[in-house]
Amino acid sequence: MANSPADELRINTIRFLAVDAVQKANSGHPGMPLGAAAFTYALWTRKLRFDPADPQWPNRDRFILSAGHASMLLYALLYLTGYGVSLDDIKAFRQLGSKTPGHSEATHTPGVEATTGPLGQGIGNAVGFAVAEAHLAAIYNRPGHEIVNHRTYCIASDGDLMEGVSQEVISLAGHWRLGKLTVLYDSNHTSLAGPTDVTFTDDQIARFDACGWHTQFVDIAHGNDVERIDEALSIAENISDRPSFILVRTHIGYGSPRQDSFQAHGEPLGPDNVKKTKENLGWPLEPDFLVPPDVLEYFRDVGRKGGALRTQWQETYDGWKRAYPDLAAQYERTLRRDLPPNLPWPSFTAENGAVATRDSGGAVMNAIAGALPELFGGSADLDPSTKTYLKGFGDFQPGSYEGRNVHYGVREHGMAAISNGLALHGGLLPYCSTFFNFLDYLKPSLRLAALTKLHLIYVFTHDSIFLGEDGPTHEPIEHLAHLRATPNVVVVRPADALEVLETWKLCVAPSEAPWVLVLSRQKLPFLGQRDAAVARGAYVISDSEKSPELILIATGSEVALALAAKKLIEQQGVPTRVVSMPCWELFERQSQEYKESVLPPDVHARMSIEAGATLGWERYVGDRGYAFGVDRYGASAPLAEIAQAYGFTPENIARLALERFAPARR
Amino acid sequence: MANSPADELRINTIRFLAVDAVQKANSGHPGMPLGAAAFTYALWTRKLRFDPADPQWPNRDRFILSAGHASMLLYALLYLTGYGVSLDDIKAFRQLGSKTPGHSEATHTPGVEATTGPLGQGIGNAVGFAVAEAHLAAIYNRPGHEIVNHRTYCIASDGDLMEGVSQEVISLAGHWRLGKLTVLYDSNHTSLAGPTDVTFTDDQIARFDACGWHTQFVDIAHGNDVERIDEALSIAENISDRPSFILVRTHIGYGSPRQDSFQAHGEPLGPDNVKKTKENLGWPLEPDFLVPPDVLEYFRDVGRKGGALRTQWQETYDGWKRAYPDLAAQYERTLRRDLPPNLPWPSFTAENGAVATRDSGGAVMNAIAGALPELFGGSADLDPSTKTYLKGFGDFQPGSYEGRNVHYGVREHGMAAISNGLALHGGLLPYCSTFFNFLDYLKPSLRLAALTKLHLIYVFTHDSIFLGEDGPTHEPIEHLAHLRATPNVVVVRPADALEVLETWKLCVAPSEAPWVLVLSRQKLPFLGQRDAAVARGAYVISDSEKSPELILIATGSEVALALAAKKLIEQQGVPTRVVSMPCWELFERQSQEYKESVLPPDVHARMSIEAGATLGWERYVGDRGYAFGVDRYGASAPLAEIAQAYGFTPENIARLALERFAPARR
Repeated sequence: MANSPADELRINTIRFLAVDAVQKANSGHPGMPLGAAAFTYALWTRKLRFDPADPQWPNRDRFILSAGHASMLLYALLYLTGYGVSLDDIKAFRQLGSKTPGHSEATHTPGVEATTGPLGQGIGNAVGFAVAEAHLAAIYNRPGHEIVNHRTYCIASDGDLMEGVSQEVISLAGHWRLGKLTVLYDSNHTSLAGPTDVTFTDDQIARFDACGWHTQFVDIAHGNDVERIDEALSIAENISDRPSFILVRTHIGYGSPRQDSFQAHGEPLGPDNVKKTKENLGWPLEPDFLVPPDVLEYFRDVGRKGGALRTQWQETYDGWKRAYPDLAAQYERTLRRDLPPNLPWPSFTAENGAVATRDSGGAVMNAIAGALPELFGGSADLDPSTKTYLKGFGDFQPGSYEGRNVHYGVREHGMAAISNGLALHGGLLPYCSTFFNFLDYLKPSLRLAALTKLHLIYVFTHDSIFLGEDGPTHEPIEHLAHLRATPNVVVVRPADALEVLETWKLCVAPSEAPWVLVLSRQKLPFLGQRDAAVARGAYVISDSEKSPELILIATGSEVALALAAKKLIEQQGVPTRVVSMPCWELFERQSQEYKESVLPPDVHARMSIEAGATLGWERYVGDRGYAFGVDRYGASAPLAEIAQAYGFTPENIARLALERFAPARR
Repeated sequence: MANSPADELRINTIRFLAVDAVQKANSGHPGMPLGAAAFTYALWTRKLRFDPADPQWPNRDRFILSAGHASMLLYALLYLTGYGVSLDDIKAFRQLGSKTPGHSEATHTPGVEATTGPLGQGIGNAVGFAVAEAHLAAIYNRPGHEIVNHRTYCIASDGDLMEGVSQEVISLAGHWRLGKLTVLYDSNHTSLAGPTDVTFTDDQIARFDACGWHTQFVDIAHGNDVERIDEALSIAENISDRPSFILVRTHIGYGSPRQDSFQAHGEPLGPDNVKKTKENLGWPLEPDFLVPPDVLEYFRDVGRKGGALRTQWQETYDGWKRAYPDLAAQYERTLRRDLPPNLPWPSFTAENGAVATRDSGGAVMNAIAGALPELFGGSADLDPSTKTYLKGFGDFQPGSYEGRNVHYGVREHGMAAISNGLALHGGLLPYCSTFFNFLDYLKPSLRLAALTKLHLIYVFTHDSIFLGEDGPTHEPIEHLAHLRATPNVVVVRPADALEVLETWKLCVAPSEAPWVLVLSRQKLPFLGQRDAAVARGAYVISDSEKSPELILIATGSEVALALAAKKLIEQQGVPTRVVSMPCWELFERQSQEYKESVLPPDVHARMSIEAGATLGWERYVGDRGYAFGVDRYGASAPLAEIAQAYGFTPENIARLALERFAPARR
């Protein structure tokens, strides 16, 4: 059925805002906005519940454009419906400091729910949003009071579905039976480098069927058909026991001379083709950025109707709040991202004996879990090893969405992409966990968490060659340096249970950066009651009686080693200070005065000790210092043998330090 | 049908070598060897063509244990069939320096084809092996002379199929119709943390069907049935137009008190359970590591029969070699990994004008491709942008396996895992390509390439914030530091076409490390004819007339910037040297004398300039130096605006240098 002239006019308004903006920027992706405008229009005007006047309305439907390169499609809709994006912002597409960067970024532009562009991420985020909704609904809704009840929509492209992370999250969403999640697949048979038939020929409907989704197919004759899309979306709405997948066959670069060609994907059409496209679709050649007043009024009215929905919800909410004031207080506190007062922190003493930091981490999490209901997460099939299971708080499963432990399976990347969605949704403080070495598997999502300033917590255990027998395939080396080089990530490697406890106190507090906790597999001694000052990044854990002539700087498991080496070194008459430095980023934020009190500028004899790559340690040991670490791959062997082979013994550290800094006293 | 007593005895020999070795090491994974021994035995004794006396026989079938944690299963077979793995090696499982590390490592243990353990990698490698076979067969076989004709077998676990990378390579293998690839899926419904039904409930048969594979199901009653497995493998052998997937339902920890429990997965059974398992399966309690002489003789005979197959192949080979001596010379040269003499290197001059290093890289590749037939690879849907297409050499597609351009689609991780398989197979020099930022998507495979010392080439373009409008989601920051911290990777960021040319000369030569080329999107000026010395890692590209008082050290696109800044600085009377430092790793290999000739120890005024994280640059600029870079995320804007905003202009560099190092002359 042909679209009404009014619908067609509005769809073309979206299309040509995108085409003109890309052309003006002389950079961007016109193809997908042309091809996907119609079905996205159908979604936004007929289904999506949102209020442009309150982009943070907690019960809004979420719209995630996984194909972030089609950002102009989203920006056009944000402007037209009345979000805080102006026509001038559209004209400043891809310019410095604009609200309209090349790929859409959450927290940067009102109405953008997730930072996308790197493919496959958005669909993972969308699953996270749907998990958050399901969990919060199970926690907060009461009979007659449905305060959490929204859908999550995602538009995915060919590239999104080629990326492996998509399979991880599709598999999980199907397993979890997330009935309020709908993925629209813009199937245009074209990617950047050519037609998809050179590389991507699986049957996507069959693939989603295999993962337990409800699937629908909209053929190429109906990819621009608003009524047909409306119908498919309605069917999806009525499927409540499974996520929905709607394959919409479209024409990339619809209406342009480059229609159905990969050349439409990622570069401006050029003035001639823009002109021809406007002619083909019956659009006035002038002016650029044309928005017919009726069209704008229509979209603004859609926005206002969303406002009415929000008002209606507010009434429901107020009734619920009166009936369940304590529940409401908790809900509002978590949305504000405030902490509850007086969390029941555990204490650790020497009597606990030697404890792996993964174990003390698990003990802290379990101590506070009852008082911190927003703490929600899981591991990539490793919770018996990472110790991150929240005992007594159930599993997030179909039929028990109130459970707080998520079984992500061996899917680190999907776990992290979902965690970003959980953090973006609001109401939760997500954590996720795996072995430190498998940071590599999830880094693309961690990077977007950092870029988007998300508050979430990564618990990485088995943090060095000292995991032992599993060997070099599992032993992180470059990982600390990698994270330290990544902007806006706080990386902490605690030395004992007390530092773990302090780290958790810091990382649950409101944060505009993700936290990474790097924990040991092996037992570590308790280093004594003290003001450990993890918050300051580094502190003197043991000083010499006289002014120090040598400083040993260590992190994590190597702090105890440094303390043992200090004894041997001092027996040779060299006054030695040991600095525990759990976190570079926090140390860098300290005053120059504090920094110099820990690392006095006149003490040049400095040695860093860390079971990882030495890259970057020159910053603290200086030209005359010595960075001791592991700049090769690990080995499969019992811990003690590895320590010996890699020189991580008190005797060897003492020998190296004396050889270098006090050769006469060796 | 029950197995014969003889088969049962041999299977139990494998099982208990694994159980005893794990128990002796007090570390390891007994569950899968117990459950998968029978079908692996069927494969090794009835189908797999291999010669333990010649582990490098080019036409052997390849066996890839994607579930690398079941390494003892493989080690047991290597010992029994007569590879260079002894019973003492088995007893030294997971000990320092042994041939039997926790997870199997290629190039470390004879007969181990791929380094596995991090899940999902092995199945990717296996697809790479099958691609290599298909391509080399198309290139070298002649009617009546089938010198390349082997199968690739892979055993994958639940975890392998949960990892997203598996979907990427399954999709590609199906698309490519790789008929000589068989994946056996050890479906034991159990992973480390629990039963798979808590997280992994997709229909795997349907999933592989959707990707165009031939699929078979072996039920739980037949998971240990040698005849049934034999039959399934025979069917797979006869399917030549599609890869084969055989789902074998098994019992993890078969025969042990922990059978079917996740507790059987990753820890020793313990002495009591070992005893009970031996009792249950009718195995003598003593001695440990029991190998009945008949059993050993049987397996050794299997090995000898493989030797006969190799001899037979050698005859075919000799006939082919006589008929096609030139082809044979090429084949043997590539297997030796030698370069042909006199590669037709292009030359670059100032007349080429400003050229992006991605473009000069593409020009070099295309110049040598004809003379270097082993160069084989592609990009993750980006070759129009990365410029890595080998023009005139066709596409690797079903029906044209002789094509040398691989369309990996938007599947960076799968691309890299497959590339590892290509490199491990022999006969090829693989390259692969994407944007530098998407290093993150493929790092798990790159790390295994480095650990395994594979010779392959990564071409990463769009190497900094200067890619411009695509914005921070696409702009690498921490990536150079990340790779520099990763052991055994050579990272080169050339400054102009001449440095690109030299880099390619270096990276195609035999190498025991992967090479990473980091190339610009934007045009870079030609910096003059010179002996550029990329091989030495760093060199003086422009010196001061008088002794230098200031050294600017730069890489890639920032070298031209440093040269421009030098002019401004020298106008203020500060003699300035500019050092181009394309490669840290190569510089570190130079003599102290050379290093000091480039960076004289008495010149402390040093400034590094690189559009990336500064982490690690202290190594070269020293305590009194200044590392200038980008320690925050990028921005979406035209290049010139970004350069201005991030301070990468000659004026700003000169200002900063003078301010810091010659304040009086500012």
